[in-house]
Amino acid sequence: MAYTIGLDYGTNSVRCVIVATGTGRELSASVYEYESGEAGILLDPADHNLARQNPADYLKGVEVTVCGAVAQAQQAEPSFDPKDIIGIGVDTTGSTPLPVDEKGTPLALLEAFKDNPNACAWLWKDHTGHAEAAEITELAAKERPDYLAKCGGTYSSEWFFSKILHCLRVDPAVFDAAYTWVEHADWLPAVLTGTDAPDKVRRCRCAAGHKAMFSDDWGGYPDAEFLAKLDLKLGQLRATLSDQTFAVDEAAGRLTEQWAAKLGLTAGIPVAMGAFDAHLGAVGSGIKGGVLVKIIGTSTCDMVVAPTSTKLPDIPGICGIVDGSILPGHYGLEAGQSAVGDIFNWYVNYLQPGGEAAGSHEALTEKAAQLKPGQSGLLALDWNNGNRTVLVDQRLTGLLVGQTLHTRPEEIYRALVEATAFGALTIINRFAEYGVQIDAIVNCGGISEKNAMLMQIYADVTGREMKISRSAQTCALGSAVAAAVVGGAYASFAEAQEAMCGVKETTFKPIAENHAVYQQLYRLYMQLHDGFGLADKPIAMGNLMKELLDLKEKANV
Amino acid sequence: MAYTIGLDYGTNSVRCVIVATGTGRELSASVYEYESGEAGILLDPADHNLARQNPADYLKGVEVTVCGAVAQAQQAEPSFDPKDIIGIGVDTTGSTPLPVDEKGTPLALLEAFKDNPNACAWLWKDHTGHAEAAEITELAAKERPDYLAKCGGTYSSEWFFSKILHCLRVDPAVFDAAYTWVEHADWLPAVLTGTDAPDKVRRCRCAAGHKAMFSDDWGGYPDAEFLAKLDLKLGQLRATLSDQTFAVDEAAGRLTEQWAAKLGLTAGIPVAMGAFDAHLGAVGSGIKGGVLVKIIGTSTCDMVVAPTSTKLPDIPGICGIVDGSILPGHYGLEAGQSAVGDIFNWYVNYLQPGGEAAGSHEALTEKAAQLKPGQSGLLALDWNNGNRTVLVDQRLTGLLVGQTLHTRPEEIYRALVEATAFGALTIINRFAEYGVQIDAIVNCGGISEKNAMLMQIYADVTGREMKISRSAQTCALGSAVAAAVVGGAYASFAEAQEAMCGVKETTFKPIAENHAVYQQLYRLYMQLHDGFGLADKPIAMGNLMKELLDLKEKANV
Repeated sequence: MAYTIGLDYGTNSVRCVIVATGTGRELSASVYEYESGEAGILLDPADHNLARQNPADYLKGVEVTVCGAVAQAQQAEPSFDPKDIIGIGVDTTGSTPLPVDEKGTPLALLEAFKDNPNACAWLWKDHTGHAEAAEITELAAKERPDYLAKCGGTYSSEWFFSKILHCLRVDPAVFDAAYTWVEHADWLPAVLTGTDAPDKVRRCRCAAGHKAMFSDDWGGYPDAEFLAKLDLKLGQLRATLSDQTFAVDEAAGRLTEQWAAKLGLTAGIPVAMGAFDAHLGAVGSGIKGGVLVKIIGTSTCDMVVAPTSTKLPDIPGICGIVDGSILPGHYGLEAGQSAVGDIFNWYVNYLQPGGEAAGSHEALTEKAAQLKPGQSGLLALDWNNGNRTVLVDQRLTGLLVGQTLHTRPEEIYRALVEATAFGALTIINRFAEYGVQIDAIVNCGGISEKNAMLMQIYADVTGREMKISRSAQTCALGSAVAAAVVGGAYASFAEAQEAMCGVKETTFKPIAENHAVYQQLYRLYMQLHDGFGLADKPIAMGNLMKELLDLKEKANV
Repeated sequence: MAYTIGLDYGTNSVRCVIVATGTGRELSASVYEYESGEAGILLDPADHNLARQNPADYLKGVEVTVCGAVAQAQQAEPSFDPKDIIGIGVDTTGSTPLPVDEKGTPLALLEAFKDNPNACAWLWKDHTGHAEAAEITELAAKERPDYLAKCGGTYSSEWFFSKILHCLRVDPAVFDAAYTWVEHADWLPAVLTGTDAPDKVRRCRCAAGHKAMFSDDWGGYPDAEFLAKLDLKLGQLRATLSDQTFAVDEAAGRLTEQWAAKLGLTAGIPVAMGAFDAHLGAVGSGIKGGVLVKIIGTSTCDMVVAPTSTKLPDIPGICGIVDGSILPGHYGLEAGQSAVGDIFNWYVNYLQPGGEAAGSHEALTEKAAQLKPGQSGLLALDWNNGNRTVLVDQRLTGLLVGQTLHTRPEEIYRALVEATAFGALTIINRFAEYGVQIDAIVNCGGISEKNAMLMQIYADVTGREMKISRSAQTCALGSAVAAAVVGGAYASFAEAQEAMCGVKETTFKPIAENHAVYQQLYRLYMQLHDGFGLADKPIAMGNLMKELLDLKEKANV
């Protein structure tokens, strides 16, 4: 029996699973909640754009969870031997870059920068660099239109260079002290394999390609001349960024003696190249040509792959089309919604509607599930954290319309769920418009498993069947699949996925009469979407409240 | 010493005050909460447009409150003698018509119609007749444009004929059983004076002029031919509507023996013509040329008068310009917001944000008062119950934009307050655009007394000083003023008001830096207002969320 370890660094915690490579069976799982900040995130009450993490939490997390999972596995299965673990895979959030010194030590771990959030990891959902993102987009549009075409036409504040440039502008001391910046997904495997000195760190294809404008078409990362036009120092940083990147079927290196001892594993086993959680989640969900994988968590990531033999156009608003970023031998296409679960959490935790008892996710869902499509008369935009796809604009906000003097908490809850479904459909439609075929949709992430109402609404809104990934730890499973490939258990991802991944029997099929109402609501959603989301597109809105009232009255008959 | 009684029928209760005519001092006050329905309103859970009242509550209310106020006055002031009461004044909500039989008995009080809400009083905020309102507007636009010009260009679902026509359509049995329909404001004085047989009821100038298209210009109510085009039976009803109406300086009649005995008063004292609560509230607040009186309650009523010697144009969106409707010898101009306090009540009682402790009006106000203009990044439309002025459209709904993942309950509360202030400013601007001068603003109603934050926001948004009426019972005081005039204590309203009315010493003055921010927010409010409120006016909204975020960030610096 061979096993692999999948490590999955999420927004609030890291989890570790030990998986049997033959079947994908999860032997054990262990979770560590980051200790710093609020649920693991360093916030600034005066600036809702700021979201950072303490890399010390990352290090403690690997130790606590691997040791925990190994101990659990031994207890659950006395025959289990940690020596049968043949590889480690790692996924993290991203783009989550952190500044490191010449030895690869994160500045946040140095005494000099200990309490400085700018020296920490800049979490994917940090939007402090929105002005810099606009600046990069503007310059690229003028000087390097190719760069933009590959990342959907707009460079996001969530991405690598926006964050680094913002740090340079607001805290040059941190920028100057950094030898380079590495993604969390690259740093962690480098630490485990002793390759964390900046010049040895292997950078992964997915982070570089989707978030840092890396492409073989122009010799890697954006050229120094371009970066220097944003800031001379940013141009100088270019020399620390390798021209070569690696896909997940390659190893970052081999587990060091020290880490092997610390974790109770065998020194020298391969650690797979890191990748973003969503990408390995797609792997764990069985992604292949024609399958859209939706990872529904605090935000969503929507992923599609297409064989590199097909010719794909650039697709406006899609974060990137990157060779090998998700699955070797395929283009990886990535889209997403900046907030999904985060919107519901905001509603429940910040607004706390309906008093303590009635205001839980479960209580609101139970009541909201009784409502018919259109019955609330409400329509929302799912932009409380901006819009990643297809508008690529963080400077957008939430909107709710249709409130009367009788609107109830569960009606708003349902409207927020529906808004995220409309956002999801907008992404599917964008793929379809540009010839990317979608034959099946596999969902994963806690919300897709826990909230049947949400999944039915997604089926009803999109008019497509919603499948659910079999594993409850799909990202960690994907990491374990990568570990199985670099560990030599399988010759290819396709073989490993076939053996280790699958979907649940229960699926959600669209109900025709609900879909019909949602088609009308979606038209109104797109009216708001284009009206508020596109610059200078005048749209008459005079019909909107009236049509919502009409739908409400029809649903109440 | 002479005293008068002012009776004030509100949305949820009736109150009675006994006032000294010499000074306006309130000797005693008594309140009766209507017993039927939810807080006195008969609702239909399946139709949020429906709002009715039981006339039995009106009758019980006069008895309970007058007897209560008399007893209280005797206790407070042993020298007080009920014989010194020289008149009674009455105000009610409106347009609140009720169907009555040939004897003047409300159908709701007959066994046959006992449980039928269509036989009850149709409360001002009943919007079930919105389709009929549109029909009346359309027909009038084609056939009698003069009718429309006098009532702001649109006939409202809140008004007399929309309600009657809707009843005719949905419940012809009730319509057929009714001899005629009378306003609550006309019915109550008629009952007290024994003139409630339909042909003896004096109909008041304000209800007829503002809500039922009555004008001397065309011989009274709309002509039978016009009404018959809406429905033959409506045409026939015209014969039961008198061609003469009466202002509040005239008496409806004299108190009957039976009622005098029941109430402990002197038979034969005059009962003034009834009027809408807002109109007599304006009187009680000291309305005169150049003074805008805002009655801020569940909804608002905004009133201005202009001497009949001035020539006034028709003003689009203003409910009416009616000779003598508020103050004898003056045109009365009436505008209003369909929901103000009702919006805050909806938020607190229906959404119940922030859990039980943090979600009261007081707790939310305390936190919201700490916020600077623009700081929430939120902007709302105050249309949860439609828009009375200047759009005259009940088929509109609430809207909230600017939510992030950090938006808190008090921020939304403040945004809702600000939205009502922007709505108030839109009304002031409309008056000003058409040459109606406003030199001072006097506010009355519970909210204006209780919520200093709201009053300061109104001052900051409008850039005008906000004064507060001295009396806490301004509408009832206005009724007592009318009673003092018909009772012979004063020769004119001006003299009576001079003696009996006044404003508080504390006023709210605009703060320049707040006003500057609110001018920017108001521009965005008007963008939403025109975009969603006007049919077919395409407006680009792409700037809106970004400008709100800019203001939020500036306020947070």
